[in-house]
Amino acid sequence: MIDLRSDTVTAPTEAMRAAMARAEVGDDVYGEDPTVRELEERVASLFGHEAALFTPTGSLANVLAVAALVGAGQEVLCESRAHIARAELGVHGAVTGLTMRTWSHPGGQVDHAAIADLHAPDMGPFFVRTAAISVENTHNFAGGAVLPLADLQQLRSFADEHATAIHLDGARIWNAHVATGVPLAAYGAVADMLAVCLSKGLGAPVGSLVIGSRERIAEARVRRKRLGAGLRQVGILAAAGLHALDHHVERLADDHAHARLLAEAAGVDPATVDTNVVVIDRADAADYVARAGQQGVRVSAVGPRTVRLVTHLDVSRADAERAAVVLARL
Amino acid sequence: MIDLRSDTVTAPTEAMRAAMARAEVGDDVYGEDPTVRELEERVASLFGHEAALFTPTGSLANVLAVAALVGAGQEVLCESRAHIARAELGVHGAVTGLTMRTWSHPGGQVDHAAIADLHAPDMGPFFVRTAAISVENTHNFAGGAVLPLADLQQLRSFADEHATAIHLDGARIWNAHVATGVPLAAYGAVADMLAVCLSKGLGAPVGSLVIGSRERIAEARVRRKRLGAGLRQVGILAAAGLHALDHHVERLADDHAHARLLAEAAGVDPATVDTNVVVIDRADAADYVARAGQQGVRVSAVGPRTVRLVTHLDVSRADAERAAVVLARL
Amino acid sequence: MIDLRSDTVTAPTEAMRAAMARAEVGDDVYGEDPTVRELEERVASLFGHEAALFTPTGSLANVLAVAALVGAGQEVLCESRAHIARAELGVHGAVTGLTMRTWSHPGGQVDHAAIADLHAPDMGPFFVRTAAISVENTHNFAGGAVLPLADLQQLRSFADEHATAIHLDGARIWNAHVATGVPLAAYGAVADMLAVCLSKGLGAPVGSLVIGSRERIAEARVRRKRLGAGLRQVGILAAAGLHALDHHVERLADDHAHARLLAEAAGVDPATVDTNVVVIDRADAADYVARAGQQGVRVSAVGPRTVRLVTHLDVSRADAERAAVVLARL
Amino acid sequence: MIDLRSDTVTAPTEAMRAAMARAEVGDDVYGEDPTVRELEERVASLFGHEAALFTPTGSLANVLAVAALVGAGQEVLCESRAHIARAELGVHGAVTGLTMRTWSHPGGQVDHAAIADLHAPDMGPFFVRTAAISVENTHNFAGGAVLPLADLQQLRSFADEHATAIHLDGARIWNAHVATGVPLAAYGAVADMLAVCLSKGLGAPVGSLVIGSRERIAEARVRRKRLGAGLRQVGILAAAGLHALDHHVERLADDHAHARLLAEAAGVDPATVDTNVVVIDRADAADYVARAGQQGVRVSAVGPRTVRLVTHLDVSRADAERAAVVLARL
Repeated sequence: MIDLRSDTVTAPTEAMRAAMARAEVGDDVYGEDPTVRELEERVASLFGHEAALFTPTGSLANVLAVAALVGAGQEVLCESRAHIARAELGVHGAVTGLTMRTWSHPGGQVDHAAIADLHAPDMGPFFVRTAAISVENTHNFAGGAVLPLADLQQLRSFADEHATAIHLDGARIWNAHVATGVPLAAYGAVADMLAVCLSKGLGAPVGSLVIGSRERIAEARVRRKRLGAGLRQVGILAAAGLHALDHHVERLADDHAHARLLAEAAGVDPATVDTNVVVIDRADAADYVARAGQQGVRVSAVGPRTVRLVTHLDVSRADAERAAVVLARL
Repeated sequence: MIDLRSDTVTAPTEAMRAAMARAEVGDDVYGEDPTVRELEERVASLFGHEAALFTPTGSLANVLAVAALVGAGQEVLCESRAHIARAELGVHGAVTGLTMRTWSHPGGQVDHAAIADLHAPDMGPFFVRTAAISVENTHNFAGGAVLPLADLQQLRSFADEHATAIHLDGARIWNAHVATGVPLAAYGAVADMLAVCLSKGLGAPVGSLVIGSRERIAEARVRRKRLGAGLRQVGILAAAGLHALDHHVERLADDHAHARLLAEAAGVDPATVDTNVVVIDRADAADYVARAGQQGVRVSAVGPRTVRLVTHLDVSRADAERAAVVLARL
Repeated sequence: MIDLRSDTVTAPTEAMRAAMARAEVGDDVYGEDPTVRELEERVASLFGHEAALFTPTGSLANVLAVAALVGAGQEVLCESRAHIARAELGVHGAVTGLTMRTWSHPGGQVDHAAIADLHAPDMGPFFVRTAAISVENTHNFAGGAVLPLADLQQLRSFADEHATAIHLDGARIWNAHVATGVPLAAYGAVADMLAVCLSKGLGAPVGSLVIGSRERIAEARVRRKRLGAGLRQVGILAAAGLHALDHHVERLADDHAHARLLAEAAGVDPATVDTNVVVIDRADAADYVARAGQQGVRVSAVGPRTVRLVTHLDVSRADAERAAVVLARL
Repeated sequence: MIDLRSDTVTAPTEAMRAAMARAEVGDDVYGEDPTVRELEERVASLFGHEAALFTPTGSLANVLAVAALVGAGQEVLCESRAHIARAELGVHGAVTGLTMRTWSHPGGQVDHAAIADLHAPDMGPFFVRTAAISVENTHNFAGGAVLPLADLQQLRSFADEHATAIHLDGARIWNAHVATGVPLAAYGAVADMLAVCLSKGLGAPVGSLVIGSRERIAEARVRRKRLGAGLRQVGILAAAGLHALDHHVERLADDHAHARLLAEAAGVDPATVDTNVVVIDRADAADYVARAGQQGVRVSAVGPRTVRLVTHLDVSRADAERAAVVLARL
């Protein structure tokens, strides 16, 4: 089986397992795990922010990052297929109590005009106020699309003018960075809070981080504890993240090449494939998934007519070539 | 002062006060107020539904109507300037725990293509499911726009095909009814739950109703109690509502005529004014509001460049004409 | 039928109806209703606080009063049969997100030792902190028991020492005032926030108030709007409250005398009846209620073996005597 | 430093690290991690229940276990120093929306009379209903007290009679089991849902489980995902749990012996020490903690006058003896 359902399915490599096995640990609820501290400091620094906080999932990193900016009764604006809107089981409303309004862009991009239209300033205690704008880079359900830095910078200016914050869902920011050469700190500079993930393209078994100012991260630490995510000797997992940062970032370029190969085989223009995600528009999505599976290629349906393939660390060049043969036949 | 800020500002007429003063009452928490029962039955019947429930505000009617259809962690789709999205202080997220996605239509209308695109079926426990689509008729922040019945019926078909519910925010459904001649029951037929208001165009001091099936209204009654809105001898207020239904529906045509008069004076095409709301796009919205006020006409800003005027029971023909003179000068 | 289920069942008197019919009104969402303003100022002043806010129910007044003092994730301490714990459908957890711990006192009294034991200071971000202590005076489910002023003052000292707030559920504070002669301002002085009700013993059809500092009341106003309780021409209801304050406070002494009469008839020691509530401990509570009803006296079961009778404005001396005959037979 | 602050501070042993390093893993969000499946099945079976679910913390296990039994607006009863009441930052109110009432027992025990008094049956839509009773065994803040099985069984009978559920917070159930010889399945039999922890006495770095019926665990899986705790290749952590079950249960007897040794040294009657927790009542709690620390023994204050010591896997006999010398001096 070649598993292209998600880049979350990767198993840790032997080297990563060895790093985990020898990790120095402590009780992170008391702030005493040296390995998680090292990871948090390194990631904060990569993005040019003051502080970071480990979370066991990317979803939780988004919950904490958004909740740091948007309170109950306030709103966040996002693209309509954003992960925070579509794929986190409504936690931002159910737990944080915020509300959303959305713009729709076929490519998952920033739509400056739509955002200007939607943006609601503070008009007193009758109206909901836009507290943050959220962008996702790369944009998962828009096919791993990269958001150009210029667009993010323009959004930053808009946000500054309107005293609004920016949340960047960077679960796959590493892919954007490798695909474009934009430094991580440049992405960090456009956002007030970021969420980044170690267990997707980077191949760690578990782990994400939320990144921001020291004060907001301190508050996020309390919220994390309240949500039952104050883990103890988490250095075991942080060690995998540190290993991934050392060894698995630059190699994402291979995943991108594999994705373009698969796109071509599946009849999708490879020029539209920015990173490691290929989205195929098929009226017969569920059936397509079933037939691919029968031929040894696992893909997933993420909408009634949307098939998604994702390349990753556990898909070798040979795997990609074999999968391409299967997809070409479907 | 001629008060055009909202149709909520009306004071009860002498006849309405008399009706309230002689209302038969009981303890409605125990279901024993005959006047509120009469009102609930009459309104349910007007819209062709099984049951209705009195609430002290239109906002609460919307909260209960939407919560009857959409649970925590599920989503409702609505137009981006809908009252439930913009003007209820985020209660649907903060209290009900649901989440929203939005389409944007300059006229506040149903956008069938956008809705089909946004609609999220039940795809298992990873994705948010669209539980309801909400429409507002007339659409307040789109200038009191009427939603054509054909559009609502088409939406009903779409919702039925996709096992999705429809919420109709009918705070000003009476205006739509009078402006178009469409029977209230025809509006009732397109929605699973409705919220209607007695204290806007109809001129009651306090009161709205939520309308739907017997079962959902029974659940709404419990939620209403939990939200601290189980009122006691509320027949006093229900009597005003019954009086308004008898005497203040057909006269809304006058408000519509006055609104067109004001639109013309304010440089807005009266053909774009469907009912009793006039929206003026002014870069100097706050200043415009101030200057109108100095000349005896109170209007409001509902957006940084959006002035709104609303005609109602307490604005006579003479008032409208005087206000038109002021607006024409601004 | 003599209705002793609750003092909420009273219908407005003719004089009260007349006061309502002539009330001057305005749109209270805009803060423009002169009658509700008068009521709010008068009630705030009676209790020696800066400000007050009208709410349509006592439950909502408690929600707003407690939420002004206790945030999500913090706790309020209260007696285990307190109205906020037992009878508001869990809204304080479900909406405000706070948590409770309770002491149990057979007479519903302040238990200083238990409170000192329960009280949790701020010990950092691992423990829940006691943000407020709530007391109910008179205590409904403890049989309308009065809390002695000395106990409340001692609790105030404890709260001050521990930087904790006090919430007073004063739905029936008027009864405590009349029964003891303690000035309302003395009760006001022991609490940071109070909730008082006009539609129980005072006989108004609808209405309560939350009382506190200007700042907390301003915040409560926003929360009230979010919970869908920003009513419009609410002066109609406020006029009933003003009338009740003028005419229905001192007469509560009659209700208290009637309650003692009924207690004696029902085999309850009248010396245990502080105000207008009589609680009868009966293993056959449901049956007792049914049999009383068959003989023209409506009473209620508020626990599996707890029958409650409440006297009020609509129970005359003659009614009380007739009911006593029935109860004596049961 | 000898760290007696909590049994959460243990680092994984070399053998445990080796087990983690060779764990077979898969994506547990897709239910494909064989090691976590094995752990879940083994733990469910140990307690005689149908199913179990891995969570990264004991707090989250409690959140999911309680939420499976108690909905928003309903209540859970517990002892006033229960971990769910005192030490989870109010998440049960803040996220689940439930409410609590509490009994207080100096030894943290089940108080049958108090529970019978507090228990609120379903009395219709005006009152909060007791949906579950929660017990904690061993009871952390009552000094690691064991709840006798007979008491739990009597509570089970009460709960069955009253159609109420039982939640067992078994974070340290392993200690109760080793201290008393009561089989884990006997504890399982008294509860509808249990939470058990692998990272306290058992010494795993991270991990707890919630245990119950197949249906409730399936729902808990969705709630776990919504709360951002759907981890991916979590077999790494589950392997530590399996190792702990094989090697670290019976040795808890050593921790219990060490705790009695320390109690004696600290002037606490060792007969009152049931398991691995010693609670010292000191008016100078904060100072005591500071002075112990200066002498190489870390202990913690869990209340203004409550010092707590906890023995665990990383405290050898020699460590315990050295700590005893220090405590004897204080």
